[in-house]
Amino acid sequence: MASPFTLHRQSSQCAARRGEVTTSHGVFQTPVFMPVGTQATVKGMTPADLKNIGAEIILGNTYHLYIRPGCELIKEFGGLHNFMAWDRPILTDSGGFQIFSLRELARISEEGAAFKSHLDGSALFLSPEDAVEVQETLGSDIMMCLDTCIPYPADLNEARQATDLTARWAKRCRAAHHRDKGQLLFGIVQGGMHKELRAQATEQLLEIGFDGYAMGGLSVGEPKDLMLDITEYTAALMPRDYPVYLMGVGTPADLVEGVWRGVDMFDCVMPTRNARNGMLFTSTGKVVIKNARYQRDQRPVDENCTCYTCRNFSRAYLRHLYMAHEILAATLNTIHNLHYYAGLMAGIRKALEEDRYEEFRREFYTKNQ
Amino acid sequence: MASPFTLHRQSSQCAARRGEVTTSHGVFQTPVFMPVGTQATVKGMTPADLKNIGAEIILGNTYHLYIRPGCELIKEFGGLHNFMAWDRPILTDSGGFQIFSLRELARISEEGAAFKSHLDGSALFLSPEDAVEVQETLGSDIMMCLDTCIPYPADLNEARQATDLTARWAKRCRAAHHRDKGQLLFGIVQGGMHKELRAQATEQLLEIGFDGYAMGGLSVGEPKDLMLDITEYTAALMPRDYPVYLMGVGTPADLVEGVWRGVDMFDCVMPTRNARNGMLFTSTGKVVIKNARYQRDQRPVDENCTCYTCRNFSRAYLRHLYMAHEILAATLNTIHNLHYYAGLMAGIRKALEEDRYEEFRREFYTKNQ
Repeated sequence: MASPFTLHRQSSQCAARRGEVTTSHGVFQTPVFMPVGTQATVKGMTPADLKNIGAEIILGNTYHLYIRPGCELIKEFGGLHNFMAWDRPILTDSGGFQIFSLRELARISEEGAAFKSHLDGSALFLSPEDAVEVQETLGSDIMMCLDTCIPYPADLNEARQATDLTARWAKRCRAAHHRDKGQLLFGIVQGGMHKELRAQATEQLLEIGFDGYAMGGLSVGEPKDLMLDITEYTAALMPRDYPVYLMGVGTPADLVEGVWRGVDMFDCVMPTRNARNGMLFTSTGKVVIKNARYQRDQRPVDENCTCYTCRNFSRAYLRHLYMAHEILAATLNTIHNLHYYAGLMAGIRKALEEDRYEEFRREFYTKNQ
Repeated sequence: MASPFTLHRQSSQCAARRGEVTTSHGVFQTPVFMPVGTQATVKGMTPADLKNIGAEIILGNTYHLYIRPGCELIKEFGGLHNFMAWDRPILTDSGGFQIFSLRELARISEEGAAFKSHLDGSALFLSPEDAVEVQETLGSDIMMCLDTCIPYPADLNEARQATDLTARWAKRCRAAHHRDKGQLLFGIVQGGMHKELRAQATEQLLEIGFDGYAMGGLSVGEPKDLMLDITEYTAALMPRDYPVYLMGVGTPADLVEGVWRGVDMFDCVMPTRNARNGMLFTSTGKVVIKNARYQRDQRPVDENCTCYTCRNFSRAYLRHLYMAHEILAATLNTIHNLHYYAGLMAGIRKALEEDRYEEFRREFYTKNQ
């Protein structure tokens, strides 16, 4: 089938590439970071705020939306885009990771995942077919296959069983997918930290054929080196003419390293969650805004930043808002952190266009020492 | 002294008038409603949001700012405008009402108000001279005299003592005021529900001479008719060439009635606080957004409203955000309620320009039945 990915330029220095992905709600440029909008909102941001930051695609969480407000309601609105007033691309996860996170509240079988709502404890069930149907109802531009996440550590046998099940589920997701709706479906490569399983899983997904390929089950507690090693190994096995997505990752350095290894798409709650906790990213490292050292600090969070927050407000003011538990603290901090992530990705894309990503990466570490 | 008030048109139907007030941060049109920015932020709103709504002046709370972040810090920023990045007029109250609200934590003497911080219980003291000095440090465009609020009910003797003390404090505030800084100072008429005391207090303030005259101690639990009666009586005693301010009031109907009786300025936490509690004002009455009846309601909060919230989002979406405890609920609801209040005042001003306020008032009640 036709790939939604268009390559602009392949780095001569590494696996990184500059490209774009075409969806039914428009094109987004890659490498891209997708802000997470768990409950049909990126916390504290209006759609206008997100556009000001330059967000081209956001992520929605199927598990959360399935539980609240529920698919029936979103169906009545003709999908998530209309419901939340976001007219650019949306990627929805399958719910697999959230169900995995429920631990003792979830039970995985061949048929699917039985789990209890974290809101009211009601018994729910999601099969691979259900996951596709829910995402078709949500109307996301990119849907993800239902997968079974593997804890870290997991021995080869445990990891193999989960990886094989994910592959069988992927096949069922593909069969359930109504391709005429213009939605893309990505497969998820599991395999834990076992390279042979990652290779096997990739091969299984390629046989089925998807619109893009994701790596799941990384950044689940393993050492950073191992995460990057598995990412590099797996990304290298993926077809170069399709988008490659590293799920749930990560820190600014993780993005720089992921891109180096050939990843096109990322998502993570880090910039938004850290913002609400008063942890701000800057071009020279982190700022924990509640620290007493910022009490009288009239400088912006980052003197090199052009976001609304840094153009208008001081560290002292942001600290005051945070200490006073003001709602505006969350909003202004989130604007800044998402702008930082967007700016990092824009810098990465520019460096790739100029084929100087190695230099960009070196400068990134020099500044962030 | 020169009045900051310019009359545009006096109603031929009632005491209402269309005018404007000139301050060192620009002019605002009256009658006006001032959103309350207690802790150097109107909760959930960026300054850009406030400007989009058309806010021309906001209110800051001296008591809260005095306690956190403190005057020394705001002084380093050259005042509250710079600190919170708001370049339009600011009115600060004196702290009197908040100290009054502390009840057993406050003790009033001739010298001033001794009180305990609601944050850490530390002992604090505010004299009339302190209240002016604090507000001069904050750099507000309109400062208020320190006053002693009178509970409802209060007998004549109790009310007289507090009213007399407020008058003596007003004189001390005027003496402490550095007029060369371009800040306006308003006197506050107390007197409880006793007309003779209101008349006496107004006369005392007029003898001292202020840049504007406020009514305090209303909407403190008394019946609505009594509040309006005292407002009408007191406003009629005030000089017609100075701005008249009814403090801490009120509902949309209160604004309509206050304007009818000659009031130019209002402030109240109602639109912002109610927004955070999910109570929305509309042209046809109140909407309690959490109600189950809005669960599938695809209409905007108010079909006649042009605010960002109503142009983009449904009642069902706002209900979802509220039920999910999302920050965006507070922001979108506050945008709507402040836009409603701003629109009401704009409608009032237009009706006054056309000298058809009686018709406007009648239509208001027809729509809000």
